[in-house]
Amino acid sequence: MNEIIKALYSRKSVRVFTDQPVSQKEKELILNAALQAPSAGCQLLYTILDITDQAKKERLSFLCDHQTFIANAPVVLIFCADCRKWLSFYREAGLIPRDPGPGDLFLSIEDVLIAAQNTVTASQSLGLGSCYIGDIMENAEDVKALLNIPEYVYPACMLVLGYPTAQQQTRPKPDRFSLSHMVCENGYQDKTSEEIQDMFTGHTGAKNYQDWMSAFCTRKYESDFSREMNRSAKIYLKDFMDQSLKESN
Amino acid sequence: MNEIIKALYSRKSVRVFTDQPVSQKEKELILNAALQAPSAGCQLLYTILDITDQAKKERLSFLCDHQTFIANAPVVLIFCADCRKWLSFYREAGLIPRDPGPGDLFLSIEDVLIAAQNTVTASQSLGLGSCYIGDIMENAEDVKALLNIPEYVYPACMLVLGYPTAQQQTRPKPDRFSLSHMVCENGYQDKTSEEIQDMFTGHTGAKNYQDWMSAFCTRKYESDFSREMNRSAKIYLKDFMDQSLKESN
Repeated sequence: MNEIIKALYSRKSVRVFTDQPVSQKEKELILNAALQAPSAGCQLLYTILDITDQAKKERLSFLCDHQTFIANAPVVLIFCADCRKWLSFYREAGLIPRDPGPGDLFLSIEDVLIAAQNTVTASQSLGLGSCYIGDIMENAEDVKALLNIPEYVYPACMLVLGYPTAQQQTRPKPDRFSLSHMVCENGYQDKTSEEIQDMFTGHTGAKNYQDWMSAFCTRKYESDFSREMNRSAKIYLKDFMDQSLKESN
Repeated sequence: MNEIIKALYSRKSVRVFTDQPVSQKEKELILNAALQAPSAGCQLLYTILDITDQAKKERLSFLCDHQTFIANAPVVLIFCADCRKWLSFYREAGLIPRDPGPGDLFLSIEDVLIAAQNTVTASQSLGLGSCYIGDIMENAEDVKALLNIPEYVYPACMLVLGYPTAQQQTRPKPDRFSLSHMVCENGYQDKTSEEIQDMFTGHTGAKNYQDWMSAFCTRKYESDFSREMNRSAKIYLKDFMDQSLKESN
C-alpha cells in the first residue's frame, strides 16, 4: 500500500483542536489543493467562504446543531455550490443567460464536494485534522443572512480544520461496511434481510439489531436536525425549482 | 510541498486509456479508499455500481452525451447517492421511517462525492488516470432502466479509470482561477466588472472577453446537454419533492 492510499485509509474526523494556529502559508496550500481538483469544464462552480470572524464562528456553531467545537476551530471554511457567478460572467459579456435549474445545482454541488475532499486530504498531509459539518444546510434563512448568501448559491458543506489533540489522534476510526455490501455489479440491487443482518454484525456492539437500529434511527434520521435539513434544503432548492416550473408550463 | 499535495496539484483528467487492464487487487484498493472517506454519521449513504458489462458501457457512452471514450475505459464506476438503503435497514428493524426529503438527498450527494474524490486520488497514486462524467445525470428514464435504479437513488457522478496514454500524460493541465477570485472572507460577495475581466485575463487566448464568453456559454451553459441535465435532474428530484409537498400541506 503506497503512502497516499495509506493516508486515505487512515483519515478520521477530528473535533478537538490544539491552540496551534494554522499559518497563512498552510491555508493557501490547502485552498489551492481545493482549486486544483477536477471541475466540470474547469468552471470551478463554487465559492469558498473563509470564516475568520470569531462572532460569526460562534453563530455558526449555534446554527449548525449547537456544535460548540466549530467556534474553537482555527479554520472554518464553507464550500458553496455557486450557480450565480457564471451568470455574472455571461452578463458581463452582454449575454442573457437562462435561469439555473436543478441540474446546474447538482453539477455545482459535485464540483464543490470534490474540491472539499481535496482540502481534507491536503490538510491531513500537513498534520491537520478536519471535520465535515453537513449541518450547514440547516437554518437557511439565518445562514443566508449571516453570510450574505444570495440567490443561486447553496452552502453545500462546512469544513473545520486545526491541529488535533493527542486524544483525537489515538481515537479509533469507526469501521466501514465491506466492499461486497457497498458495490453492485452492472446494476442496483436491494439488499435481502440476510445481507442487512450480515452488514451490521460487529456494528451493533452488545445490542441486538432491532435495539441498535431503533436508537440510531431516533438519533439520526428521525432527529430534529434531520427534519431541519429537509425543511431548510427546500429553501435553497426553491431558486432552482421555480425555473423548472416555468419550463414545464 | 509534500508528495500528497504535489499529487493533488498535478492531477488532471484522462480520457484516453491504454489496453492495460486494471487488476482486481487495484480495483479493491481504490474502492476501499472510497469507503474510507468521511461520511455523515459513518452511514456511507451511497452505492457504487461497477459496470463490467461491455454492452452497458457502450449504452452509457451513448446516454452520457455520446462520449465514446467511456466504452473504452477499463473501469467504469457510477457513484449513486442512496437514500433508499437505510430505509430498508430501518424497516428490517420493524420501524416505519419517514420518506426521504431534499435534505437527505443533499447529504447523500455529499457523502458520495467525497468518496468519489478519494477514488480519484487513490487511482492516481497507482498510476491510473480518471475522468468524472457529470453527464450520468442526463436521460434519467433510460439510465434508471439500464441500471435498475429505483426510487430514492440518484447517480450523482460517473468515474472512468484506466492507464493513460503517453499523450494524455503530457497534456497540459488547464489553469485554475487564483485564490483571491475563489475565496471570500466572512461572507459572499458578488464580483465587480473589473474582477471578472481580471479573472479571465490569460483564459481567453487570442479572443476578446465577449467572444470567448459567448462561445463558452453556447458550448456549455446553453448546450443541449446542459438543458438535458436540468430536465433529467427534475425526475430524480421528484421522489424527494413529493415528500416536501406532503409535509407542507
